[in-house]
Amino acid sequence: MEYPPEMIRGIFTPNIVPFHADHRINEGELRRYVQWLLERGVTGIYPNGSTGEFIRLSYEQRIRVVEIVMEETRGKVPVLAGAAEPNIDMVLSACRRYADLGCRAVSVTGPYYFKVSQHSIEHYFRELAAKSPIDIILYNIPQFSNEISLGVVKRLAMDCPRIVGIKDSSRDMPRFMDTLNEIKPQRPDFSCLIGCEEILLPVLMMGGDGGTIATSGVAPEAVMKLYHSFLSGDFAEAKRIQFKLLELIATMFAAGNFPEGFREGVNLRGFNTGRGPQTMSPHELEHFYTIRSKLACLLAECGFKEAAASCEGAPQKLDAMLERIRRRLP
Amino acid sequence: MEYPPEMIRGIFTPNIVPFHADHRINEGELRRYVQWLLERGVTGIYPNGSTGEFIRLSYEQRIRVVEIVMEETRGKVPVLAGAAEPNIDMVLSACRRYADLGCRAVSVTGPYYFKVSQHSIEHYFRELAAKSPIDIILYNIPQFSNEISLGVVKRLAMDCPRIVGIKDSSRDMPRFMDTLNEIKPQRPDFSCLIGCEEILLPVLMMGGDGGTIATSGVAPEAVMKLYHSFLSGDFAEAKRIQFKLLELIATMFAAGNFPEGFREGVNLRGFNTGRGPQTMSPHELEHFYTIRSKLACLLAECGFKEAAASCEGAPQKLDAMLERIRRRLP
Amino acid sequence: MEYPPEMIRGIFTPNIVPFHADHRINEGELRRYVQWLLERGVTGIYPNGSTGEFIRLSYEQRIRVVEIVMEETRGKVPVLAGAAEPNIDMVLSACRRYADLGCRAVSVTGPYYFKVSQHSIEHYFRELAAKSPIDIILYNIPQFSNEISLGVVKRLAMDCPRIVGIKDSSRDMPRFMDTLNEIKPQRPDFSCLIGCEEILLPVLMMGGDGGTIATSGVAPEAVMKLYHSFLSGDFAEAKRIQFKLLELIATMFAAGNFPEGFREGVNLRGFNTGRGPQTMSPHELEHFYTIRSKLACLLAECGFKEAAASCEGAPQKLDAMLERIRRRLP
Amino acid sequence: MEYPPEMIRGIFTPNIVPFHADHRINEGELRRYVQWLLERGVTGIYPNGSTGEFIRLSYEQRIRVVEIVMEETRGKVPVLAGAAEPNIDMVLSACRRYADLGCRAVSVTGPYYFKVSQHSIEHYFRELAAKSPIDIILYNIPQFSNEISLGVVKRLAMDCPRIVGIKDSSRDMPRFMDTLNEIKPQRPDFSCLIGCEEILLPVLMMGGDGGTIATSGVAPEAVMKLYHSFLSGDFAEAKRIQFKLLELIATMFAAGNFPEGFREGVNLRGFNTGRGPQTMSPHELEHFYTIRSKLACLLAECGFKEAAASCEGAPQKLDAMLERIRRRLP
Repeated sequence: MEYPPEMIRGIFTPNIVPFHADHRINEGELRRYVQWLLERGVTGIYPNGSTGEFIRLSYEQRIRVVEIVMEETRGKVPVLAGAAEPNIDMVLSACRRYADLGCRAVSVTGPYYFKVSQHSIEHYFRELAAKSPIDIILYNIPQFSNEISLGVVKRLAMDCPRIVGIKDSSRDMPRFMDTLNEIKPQRPDFSCLIGCEEILLPVLMMGGDGGTIATSGVAPEAVMKLYHSFLSGDFAEAKRIQFKLLELIATMFAAGNFPEGFREGVNLRGFNTGRGPQTMSPHELEHFYTIRSKLACLLAECGFKEAAASCEGAPQKLDAMLERIRRRLP
Repeated sequence: MEYPPEMIRGIFTPNIVPFHADHRINEGELRRYVQWLLERGVTGIYPNGSTGEFIRLSYEQRIRVVEIVMEETRGKVPVLAGAAEPNIDMVLSACRRYADLGCRAVSVTGPYYFKVSQHSIEHYFRELAAKSPIDIILYNIPQFSNEISLGVVKRLAMDCPRIVGIKDSSRDMPRFMDTLNEIKPQRPDFSCLIGCEEILLPVLMMGGDGGTIATSGVAPEAVMKLYHSFLSGDFAEAKRIQFKLLELIATMFAAGNFPEGFREGVNLRGFNTGRGPQTMSPHELEHFYTIRSKLACLLAECGFKEAAASCEGAPQKLDAMLERIRRRLP
Repeated sequence: MEYPPEMIRGIFTPNIVPFHADHRINEGELRRYVQWLLERGVTGIYPNGSTGEFIRLSYEQRIRVVEIVMEETRGKVPVLAGAAEPNIDMVLSACRRYADLGCRAVSVTGPYYFKVSQHSIEHYFRELAAKSPIDIILYNIPQFSNEISLGVVKRLAMDCPRIVGIKDSSRDMPRFMDTLNEIKPQRPDFSCLIGCEEILLPVLMMGGDGGTIATSGVAPEAVMKLYHSFLSGDFAEAKRIQFKLLELIATMFAAGNFPEGFREGVNLRGFNTGRGPQTMSPHELEHFYTIRSKLACLLAECGFKEAAASCEGAPQKLDAMLERIRRRLP
Repeated sequence: MEYPPEMIRGIFTPNIVPFHADHRINEGELRRYVQWLLERGVTGIYPNGSTGEFIRLSYEQRIRVVEIVMEETRGKVPVLAGAAEPNIDMVLSACRRYADLGCRAVSVTGPYYFKVSQHSIEHYFRELAAKSPIDIILYNIPQFSNEISLGVVKRLAMDCPRIVGIKDSSRDMPRFMDTLNEIKPQRPDFSCLIGCEEILLPVLMMGGDGGTIATSGVAPEAVMKLYHSFLSGDFAEAKRIQFKLLELIATMFAAGNFPEGFREGVNLRGFNTGRGPQTMSPHELEHFYTIRSKLACLLAECGFKEAAASCEGAPQKLDAMLERIRRRLP
């Protein structure tokens, strides 16, 4: 099948943001990190996603992160900029700025904090679509913000050319199947991206267009190999990698408040990431360093030698912890 | 790959139970229905599943349903009998009866109604495994009963030969991926069955062993064709059928209290199913007949001519309703 | 204000069921326990509530429990019998039996396991009300079974004389306030009972009619003193007791799977309760005995000397555990 | 009982923010509104609460709202300023500004959007308490942001003099009872405020210190009369008002996305409130105007003549709608 060249497909990395000890963004490391990702062939970059902790930054910081990413990517890859600002005027301001910077599209969640009706959410995106100077990706992440129901997604896809796709982080594969089924026949260029690392391959096999995959910020080599194996029809290899990644993914989720495990993964790949704005308690940090060691071992096993030094001894099994995380307990 | 001959693999039909108007089980129709399923080649039958409304039957009725299924199948196909009784003594009584009847295995949910700790759930299944005269399938359906966490499943799979598989109806594909990854390498004969129709194909492609698929009780021809297409490597055809089935599935879920839509699907295939024990209000019945008509059209489209007569005019789109259902609203 | 003499008001004890080691009901202890409760002046008995683990008994056992309670109470106090059977025919069978036995009313939850629409729930209770030979109390416990929404409760209260009240265990005081406000002005004899020990006094003060209070099965002296202090206008004393009971309540909830802590409370008052049908793991039992010791100390402090012997040393603070329970974690 | 003079007690109004049609804050109306509230005797003002839609404003707007409130109140009443900023540095910046402005205290929610562990939340508040130049009220609103568990609240109350109270909007009265019971004996000056209008009176009667009550921004006369009736021991009158307010409260919640109903209540009291940043769909607006009419009738009934003109005809019962809201459906 032929796709229009501008269609958003492939693996986008929702980059973590490195910080200095005084909580300022470490711009130098961010620049170096983006270059490193580009060298490893990710399809595009996705600043201000949940992995980028947009919600914990100031408006000015969010803009700054995208400026830096755009300065580093310089048009070489498409950039999807998260623009889930507190109100529609601020979203539109961000949209204008990101359009000026040359981003490919913005990504916008449903409103967060308050529960908002689906009618209002549809109305909100229709207004955005009418006024935005840049293409919009719907960002469905019902764990953290109001769901954008499939009915709403479908109507928006049919009516709003500015809305060019959905990034679905709901972890709900049945819904993703329905999304493909109800939208693609009528609008094949509507990008259906998954935001759940564990099911990237099944999503691709069923016709999804790719994903925003936090793990691609830690092990871009592996995720891109999975993707290219899929594209070239080597299903066995793609499957092998997908399963291989599952323990790494679970371990990063188990490390503590999201996205600290993913940040630590980047750290183990050789970046001075610092700690995120949401600090952990001393008790949690202790636990965190145990996980870090396991994470280092897993990365070393994947062939990333820079992590090997941090793999200390035989990390004890972290099953109980992993289970807690999987069951989404606090 | 070779599988042991007794391993539980394939498509098992969780049969609905037909009722007389006076609420007695319509045994004649149940027999005729089981024969009809056998003729259409389903791998096995799964009485007393959620689709079989085990929770709304008396203990005696549950036993009776399995007796009838065993009399009709006569060893031609494996039967998994739901045995989620109110307490462990009653579960074991049912296990003994189902063993005597020649069932292949029983399926047992986590305890329902009360919240129970994972420790207690693990202890419960260990005790069952130690005392049961018949193989056990864990039935994970956290929507309706206590979740059986993956950690518990894994430990049970490693320690208890009597526990031979899991049927996962959680609709949680990331969890299913983790289940395959954490159990299969150490116990490849542990059956991993999905209980979510929308993702049957992706599950099969990733290494799942099959499923208990309510839709196979309504359109067994289609579901078995999907399965055999997958087995024979015709992925394109399997994918076509999987997507084709999605609207049918959504419509049956949208018809009202589960499993009334599935029962009505069976009705449209030519069985006198009656209504289930949980009656609908007059207002809901009105709505139900609109859905029934749409359901008939979808079945007729699939080539099931007996349904065509009930497809009246152009059924208006049921999007709002489908959306409600998808979002699991009451 | 004058109330009709048959109106259901006061403190009803949802009795635990004692078991023999072989899982049979310990009928002798159950009889002795009911007599003990009567001697301590509880308003009435409520067999087959959640505390009575109706869901873990067989149909025959549930009937038997009520028979025993009726034989012991012999009309001295009103008995509300839980009749939440698997389907409407079985509910009505139980209703007929409980009417014959002379129970004051039955209590029926919304359907459990499956999600059922509010329309169907209303229809279900209307049908019950039309056919039942005995008064019905709605039992709202959305943690474990389908909620009975306030709109449904209100319409049933207005239309169905057979439905004489609600027992609300939702722990939702704002809803209870709305219930009083929307029903009492039009039907003052509709009993509004709370099933949440922690808020018994505020509920009474705002116009509630009483409660089904599991703690009254462990410390009937204290709960009845609270109630009588309230009735006689001694608000300060009632408040003192309510607060005094909170730690006891929290400790019983923290003891393990409900209702094991309450059963153990009864045990500490001098009854041979045995363990319930849902067994705990060895690991949990260890923890349980720590809690038991704390529970014994709390009961001893309340002046129940029979518990003193089991209060060993200084029980360490169980805050973490209590917190888990309060936050309803598994 | 004697309370220290600086203790935070009474009724604080979480003010809505009026907007111009172009989405700028209507500063003139905000000033006039604050004066109107002061004239009606509310204990204090609480800008940047959920009712004040802090989450939908920019950082600069939040600061501006507090500046205006401080300019209008000029020390006549205590002001609690919401300071739930995206990260700890921004919270502390806001704290310093609010301290300089002379606010009595700030109120801070648990982190929102991401799930954060209770350990991290405790650590976060400890750090805030150590660095803040102004007293802190914990704001527990688990519907919208991470819960602050009772265990955490208790430890913070015992260890941190800067943390002077909790505002609990969880609607969880059993938890509020436990809060009073576990904290007051050791720290009687720790303010326990409720943020749930429906249970203000029971909370006061059980020993709560007051509340942040959105309804006091619409009907301050009624809420203050309830409060003063309680203080003067006229329980019957306080109870009458509490019940009288319930339908008004339910109607404002039913009007649409929170806090539109409360904003409209203020509008009906004679203020040019405009619409909030989260717009409604045309379909919802239609519905909204029906509710508005009912709201006007209820306010007119309470004796607020300015609302009478908007009470058109006999508003039909809004039961279905109210029920949806009560059950917290989207």
